[in-house]
Order: sequence, then structure tokens, then C-alpha cells
Amino acid sequence: MGDPSGIGPEVVMKALADPARRSRARFRIHGSSAAMLAAARGAGTEPFWVRVPRETAYALPHVLGSGGPDVVLVDSDGTDGDSGAAIPVHERRATRAGGELSFRWVEDAIADARRAPGDPLRADAIVTAPISKEAWALAGHGEFPGHTELLGARFGAPRAAMMFEAGVLRVILVTTHVPLTEVPGAITTERVLETIRLGHDACVRLGVARPRIAVCGLNPHAGEAGLLGHDETRAITPAIERARGAGIDCSGPFPGDTIFNAAVKKRYDMVVAMYHDQGLIPVKLLAFDRAVNVTLGLPTVRTSPDHGTAFDIAGRGEADPGSMGAAIDLAIRLAGGVGSVPPAG
Amino acid sequence: MGDPSGIGPEVVMKALADPARRSRARFRIHGSSAAMLAAARGAGTEPFWVRVPRETAYALPHVLGSGGPDVVLVDSDGTDGDSGAAIPVHERRATRAGGELSFRWVEDAIADARRAPGDPLRADAIVTAPISKEAWALAGHGEFPGHTELLGARFGAPRAAMMFEAGVLRVILVTTHVPLTEVPGAITTERVLETIRLGHDACVRLGVARPRIAVCGLNPHAGEAGLLGHDETRAITPAIERARGAGIDCSGPFPGDTIFNAAVKKRYDMVVAMYHDQGLIPVKLLAFDRAVNVTLGLPTVRTSPDHGTAFDIAGRGEADPGSMGAAIDLAIRLAGGVGSVPPAG
Repeated sequence: MGDPSGIGPEVVMKALADPARRSRARFRIHGSSAAMLAAARGAGTEPFWVRVPRETAYALPHVLGSGGPDVVLVDSDGTDGDSGAAIPVHERRATRAGGELSFRWVEDAIADARRAPGDPLRADAIVTAPISKEAWALAGHGEFPGHTELLGARFGAPRAAMMFEAGVLRVILVTTHVPLTEVPGAITTERVLETIRLGHDACVRLGVARPRIAVCGLNPHAGEAGLLGHDETRAITPAIERARGAGIDCSGPFPGDTIFNAAVKKRYDMVVAMYHDQGLIPVKLLAFDRAVNVTLGLPTVRTSPDHGTAFDIAGRGEADPGSMGAAIDLAIRLAGGVGSVPPAG
Repeated sequence: MGDPSGIGPEVVMKALADPARRSRARFRIHGSSAAMLAAARGAGTEPFWVRVPRETAYALPHVLGSGGPDVVLVDSDGTDGDSGAAIPVHERRATRAGGELSFRWVEDAIADARRAPGDPLRADAIVTAPISKEAWALAGHGEFPGHTELLGARFGAPRAAMMFEAGVLRVILVTTHVPLTEVPGAITTERVLETIRLGHDACVRLGVARPRIAVCGLNPHAGEAGLLGHDETRAITPAIERARGAGIDCSGPFPGDTIFNAAVKKRYDMVVAMYHDQGLIPVKLLAFDRAVNVTLGLPTVRTSPDHGTAFDIAGRGEADPGSMGAAIDLAIRLAGGVGSVPPAG
């Protein structure tokens, strides 16, 4: 559900209010009944979920298990001696309580996904709603800048990679939240190759039989044959060659400022970008607030909408559930769920 | 005219074939009659220009001067003992002759622009068609990677800045053709401030009374308050503060991956980008092959289309003159020419 002070409850409620979406998977919401009800009231939607208290939820396998209802809300209201009123619903700011709750809900979702294969309570995918870094820090969880790092730590996958789907454009990042000065040093053949592989495998899971992978250069004009930098010959070209040697249809390095046009024209199924802004400028320009963020390299599927808590509009009923809906749909596709959902855009 | 082996002659001919455009300024084409005639033949267009041989052109002030025809072709064919056949029209590759001619034509245009104010032969603006770096190198001019560097050298303006107009989006670069490793070191308060000033002044010349300037950060999330880099506090924020102190409406540093959406929504008149791909990814994604490149910081106006020689399609009649037309129109607006041309897009 994300931080209950933000738009998380609203976009979760709105995205799952679509019966067609609910028919394609079964959903377990870790969150607050007060927040869900407030969101439903604001939208004039009748509650479509079954509420179970967090303390007793896992003692009710007929509810959480495979024969249970489509949407179960595992409700934290009233737990730990808090009253429902203590949940900071739509407070529009970072609070300790919002940080503690939203952190716990992610931990609960991770526990669901870490259950043994075959366990009827196991989750096949995690979709996260926006949290506030500041609230996590207030609650004493400042060591995790965000979901991705927490997931990487809990699953023991330090190289988890960020991928984005924005309509027809898919982008995966070799480096993410590092200062630009540190980017060139972080671009190694091994790391580029691993990212190419993760991107390739994600495309295959999404049904692309033979994915065409385009790899960006690091420097202007992809180094222009060494005139504008040597990182391409040092690290990127060798990674492309090794990927091709492994049977992956992979090409580049291409200039960052031209390759995204080719990808938008569907000449490639995935673009491997070297750093944050190189990959995210096109994603956000093409699909602002409707892109989906995917964490690859984990032993589970994880997606999330590509927007934040939007504290400023929380509780107003104005939040657009498009990105959350796309994140849910993509998680279903990646997990091989029932029915095929065409990509957005 | 650019390299005669590429699409330069074709896009120049097609862009000036529009009588409305010709009515707004007077044009002098430095180039080849054979190339222009081939382009006109390919398009089924009757010649609309007056040809004068290069050797005698400047002895004919009634032709080149203010009372002369709208379009004069200063023709290099047959000069220097070459026959017209020696002009490498549509050869679709870099040649020594193409490099020598296209280099000379730029020098001629620079000489036009450097004439004294009041000289009736003086040019108010230069529009360049695409050249081949490889051809310039073959012709012994490899010390100049492109037009911008040649113009900077001839006008004694080593800090000439590149600006782009792509529909409603205007972007100016603090650094251009340097390896990414060297970018952080090149970002200084003075350089950012100078770029802000050049961008502001260009907006004013384009008729924006009080330009709103947005400045990008260098690091992901614009450094996120120092968590992801310190270049913002070290160099960029001080430049913004100094610009504001000088009365410029300037804000930032903003995350590179979100600010271009705000600019596209017309909340800003100019975005100051820190490096090549940060600024050019959005420009090319929004207006591939239709963006206009502007050199600021010169004592003359200079624009060019944002595409290359496209040797592969030269002579086929397929070249799109949209970017060349937009470059000509923008040069007229920047030079304060007759009539107002609304920006493309």
C-alpha cells in the first residue's frame, strides 16, 4: 500500500477496482483498512476486498490460500496497541508512523514471496506502492534509500537491476543511484554483460522470443571511435561481444541521443543505459507518471509505479492509477499469470 | 550548402523553394551550381536562384547587395581549374574534394558575417548545412571537429555554446563534446553562469520578455541533497544564485529526468543541461531530425539543422527539409529579420 500519508492507498484501490484486472490474478494488500476505506469513499467505490486482521491472517489459509477471495486486505489497523485512528491516513507529510507501517508492509510482502515453492500462501510477485524515504528515516530505517535496496538486502541480491517499461520503450540501467563522477568506474564488462543478460531474460519472460538488445555508449556519440572517450572500447564493446557469443542478439554501443528513437520505432526490445539520467530522461519524457519500474535479478518478480507518494495531492481523489495499474499488469505478465495483458501505450 | 556528397544541397534547395520563406530574408548560398541543379531536377523544381561565379561575385554589389535578388548562389563550380564535373555531387561518401569545398564555403560565410556593420554585403546570420568530419580531415582540416569549433576559432569565441530548439523545448549545454569522465571537472560556477546568461539572452532575442530558465543538476535526482553527489552545491546552485542576483528568472538544480517534462509543458523557456546526452536525449526524442542547433556566444547568428550528411540517402530525393527550414526560420528570428515566424511544433 505504500505510505498511508500519500497516494498509495488511492492508486491501489483504484487500480484493483477494475474487475477485469482482478480476474487475472489474486491479490493480497498489506496495508490499512482505514486508508483503503477512505480511498474508496473518495472515489464512490464499494469495497471489493475481504479484510483480515494482520495478527490472524496467516492462521486463515482458506482466506489467503489459493481458493480464497480475489483481494484480501491484510490489515494493520489496531495492531500493536495502535488504534485505527493512529494510522496517518492522507496526512500529506512524512511521519514516523507512516514510515514504520510502510516499511513493515514491504517486509510482509517479502516474507510472502520468500515462502517455499509450493506453499499455497507464497506470493509470485510483489508490487510496491510509493514510500517516503524521509518517513523510513524517521522510523529508523534510513539505511535503505528505497524498496530496491531493501529487496536486494533481504533476497541477498546486491546486483538487482532497475528496468523500466514506458509504452513500447524498455530500458534497463547498468548503474543507478551513484554520483556521475563514479559512473565511469562502475561501468565494467562484467556489470554491462550481467545487465544485458537480465534485460534479455526479462524480454523472454515477457514473451519476446528473440529479444533485440541495444546498448548505449557512455560518452557523447558513444565515444566517436575513441575521440570522446574510451569506456566503450574498454568495457562496453567487450560485454556486447561476450553477450553475442552467448547467443544474445545484442548491438551497440550506440549514441545515447539517437538510440531511443530507434527503440521507440520498435527496432529494439530493450535498451541498456549506462546511468540514471541517460535511461530515465527518455522513460519519463515518453510516459511521465505512467512508466513501470521493475527490479530484475531477484528470485521474485517486483514492479512498482514510477511515481512518488505525491503528498501534496493525497486524499483529494485526483491520483491517476495508470502507473499502478500498469505495474500490476506487468507483474502478472512477468509472473506468467492468467491471461495476457498487452503492454500499455 | 554543406558537403555536396550528402543531402545538404537537397535540403537547402527544398527549404528555399518555399516562396513565403524567401520573402522574409535575403539568402546567399555558398555552394555548387551542379549540386543545386541536381537537387532541383530531382524534386521537379524550377531554379529560383541567381547564379554568380565565386571569383566575380563580390565585384557585383548590385547582385549581392541589399537591392539584389532574394537568393544568390555563389558558385564554386569550375573554380580553381576544377570542372563542374569534379564537384562530388551526391557521391554518398566522404571525399577530399567534398571536404575542401564544404570547408571553403563555411569560411566564405564567416567572411560575409565578419564584414563591417553597415557594409551592404555583410551577412546577419549563418545557416550551415551538414558537413562530414571525415571529409574535412581528408582535406587537411581535421583540427576542427565541426562547424562550431571553426566558428569559435574564427570569431575568437572559445566559449561558444550549443543551444537546441525542438518545438517548444529549448536546451543549452554547459559542456558538449567531452568524455563523460571530464564533465564533472568542467562544471564550474563561472561556466554554468555564462551558459545561463547566453540562454537567457537568446530567449530575449526570440521575443520572450522575461525568460524562465531551468537548470539541471549533474547527478541523479540533482544530487538529492548531497546523498548522490556534491556538484550541485559546489557549482550549480551558486551559479543559479548569481544569475538570480543579476535579475534572471532562473531556478534549479532540477533532476534531469523530470525537468524536461516541465519544460515541454511550457513552464520554462530554456533548460540548461550539464552535458551532451542529458540535453540531447530529450531534444532528439521530441524532434528527431527536426531540431535546430544554434551556436550562442558568437558576434553573429548561427543555426543549423540537427542532422548529418546522410550519405546513404543523398541524391534520392528523400531528404526531409524540415530541420533546415526550421534552422533558416530560427536564424531569421534571432537576427530580427522581416516578419515573425512562430516556432515549429
